[in-house]
Amino acid sequence: MSVTYPLGFRAAGTAAGMKPSGRPDLGLLAADAGATATGLFTTNAFPAAPVTLSRSRLAGGSARAVLVNSGQANAATGERGERDARESTRRAAELLGVESGEVLSCSTGVIGRPVEMEALTRWLPVLAGRLSREGGPQFAEAIMTTDTVRKEARSTSGPYRVGGCAKGVGMIAPDLATMLAFLTTDAPLETSGLRALASGVLAPAFESLTVDACCSTNDTVLLFASGAAGGHGIAPGSPEWEGLAEAVSEVAESLVHQLAADAEGGSHVLVVEVAGAASDADALRVAKAVAESPLVKAAAFGGDPNPGRLLQSVGSSGADFRPKDVAIRIGSVEAVTGGEIPSEYTDAGDAAARIEMKQAEIHYSIVLGNGPGRARVLGSDLSYDYVRINAEYTT
Amino acid sequence: MSVTYPLGFRAAGTAAGMKPSGRPDLGLLAADAGATATGLFTTNAFPAAPVTLSRSRLAGGSARAVLVNSGQANAATGERGERDARESTRRAAELLGVESGEVLSCSTGVIGRPVEMEALTRWLPVLAGRLSREGGPQFAEAIMTTDTVRKEARSTSGPYRVGGCAKGVGMIAPDLATMLAFLTTDAPLETSGLRALASGVLAPAFESLTVDACCSTNDTVLLFASGAAGGHGIAPGSPEWEGLAEAVSEVAESLVHQLAADAEGGSHVLVVEVAGAASDADALRVAKAVAESPLVKAAAFGGDPNPGRLLQSVGSSGADFRPKDVAIRIGSVEAVTGGEIPSEYTDAGDAAARIEMKQAEIHYSIVLGNGPGRARVLGSDLSYDYVRINAEYTT
Repeated sequence: MSVTYPLGFRAAGTAAGMKPSGRPDLGLLAADAGATATGLFTTNAFPAAPVTLSRSRLAGGSARAVLVNSGQANAATGERGERDARESTRRAAELLGVESGEVLSCSTGVIGRPVEMEALTRWLPVLAGRLSREGGPQFAEAIMTTDTVRKEARSTSGPYRVGGCAKGVGMIAPDLATMLAFLTTDAPLETSGLRALASGVLAPAFESLTVDACCSTNDTVLLFASGAAGGHGIAPGSPEWEGLAEAVSEVAESLVHQLAADAEGGSHVLVVEVAGAASDADALRVAKAVAESPLVKAAAFGGDPNPGRLLQSVGSSGADFRPKDVAIRIGSVEAVTGGEIPSEYTDAGDAAARIEMKQAEIHYSIVLGNGPGRARVLGSDLSYDYVRINAEYTT
Repeated sequence: MSVTYPLGFRAAGTAAGMKPSGRPDLGLLAADAGATATGLFTTNAFPAAPVTLSRSRLAGGSARAVLVNSGQANAATGERGERDARESTRRAAELLGVESGEVLSCSTGVIGRPVEMEALTRWLPVLAGRLSREGGPQFAEAIMTTDTVRKEARSTSGPYRVGGCAKGVGMIAPDLATMLAFLTTDAPLETSGLRALASGVLAPAFESLTVDACCSTNDTVLLFASGAAGGHGIAPGSPEWEGLAEAVSEVAESLVHQLAADAEGGSHVLVVEVAGAASDADALRVAKAVAESPLVKAAAFGGDPNPGRLLQSVGSSGADFRPKDVAIRIGSVEAVTGGEIPSEYTDAGDAAARIEMKQAEIHYSIVLGNGPGRARVLGSDLSYDYVRINAEYTT
């Protein structure tokens, strides 16, 4: 039930004919009595109209609903795009009996294509009429583009529930921009506690995902807290907050893992763990350099352990380390020691490493030295299908 | 005749059995009476043994010869690799009757694999015996790895000749590290004039090439000046120097273009030109973000103009600009104006842009604003063959 698992939320999804495929393409998530709310947004210099709108509407720290369409990204659409985002949320607000400023907006689909407003307008009343406590899966389905499966997760912390759903098969899919994620909880969280969860838990979780290093124009993560489970405001740092943070983290990590597993054309999830760096930032730089290297990704697709490419990508990351301190394991196999590929590996280790490469999750573990910096990044391999999807998709 | 086109140089190449394929894999380029020499080297934190050796031997600004092997990169090979690079150049120096310190070394091939010293030692005397004024093409062939064609160029400036050859099909090929380039001239250049050519002409030319954003452990560009054309030292900035700089630039640009055209699996050369940036550095950042985006590259392979992906990659480049000032042309077609994809494009332009995508060279022209910064980058599309070559190559 994902986003409708916590109390106080209803959701719905429908096929409004906005996608040429005729699949579900319009979703609505609403908090019965309002919710505190916060968001994380793309850093792209060309944010889509709904990104700009939602960001500004979250300034007050609360929201009643979010309307999501898939099919058109409403990015690079100029003033018309801004007007469409305002107009569609105004209509949703009217149907929900709330203020326009309380409704957020997300879009995913072809960049530069304006929203199919006629279809949206026709189907919005139907969608609003279908809002229900069981609507989470329909909502999760309506936000999909080239996703092959729904991505949903749930967890609990004491009396509180946390739910979530997400979409995205590259940081940006075909022309279909976007990673979108929606998390809900019925815990009574003030805006400050909610924002602490967003920056402390959600940001690192979602930033650890890289499919093709492309930050879309529409990436959005929204977190809503209805407070419907009762009780008083949970302060950041309190034991209740810590427990809730763990549950939110569990849901976020699960969604991130589901996103990596459904990456465009991907056949393996790459898990790159870096330790011993001078700083967390340096560790992240190295982890991303490895997870985003087309040579490492293509080798992973081919089942080739290829420590030379791992070394090359670590070496060109720009992070600060002593080459002679670097060690790399592929699964449990030592592939680099003291900055070199040991002759034992070349002579015998390759066979063992090739077995590690057959796993659904391929683990690369990189130690840069003795520093305190750590990072973990999830990625995907580079397959014929990635090229096919991204070369041949033209709707 | 490439590197042996200028007077004062002899070269040779042979198949020494260092490559499993049995193709030519050992090359020698020698200056009859010595030459001023300089180099550009990889910035990778794990430079190969021959890179470290050659860099240190160029401190004095001169050299007699360079020995190149393909098949083993002699990178990540530790002390054994350093010993092998020293030993192989010592033997070459002995055969040439010069000091060890006057012979440079380059390797390209599998990272982590030590040089096949027995084969090298056996064939080195044969190779040295074959040195000739006509040996340029054999040398150019011996340095190839997965290159499908030899890359050679020549030019003149007044009485002076400039020649060059290069290899490389990715910044890093399969496991086969490396872009290598060798340029020669018979102009009488002091070390200072030579170094000014390297930093002012060669560095920007070779840095404008990006096949897969991967800076190898072995990348090397060497420039030799024999002075055999006669005359006195050419000072940097003099009219002779300017003319020579143009000839060197012509040879370098030609080699860079040949490298881009032979990129692994590539079917199109991508030419990304950026103007109006706040600085040249910002322009380069945007040009590389576009040329290295897997989504832009896959779209190019599929013949899809996809301005949304161009916009997305410009927007995530980190460069400083006002989104509303951005304009992008694909060939002669306006695909983005005022930071938006104009409706004229969506309605009609796509057909015209698709014709531009069929060209062997696809031109993307990006104007960021009114700033003075400019850059030009050559790249390649992302094809099934890139994945195949990099996933399935395992020798």
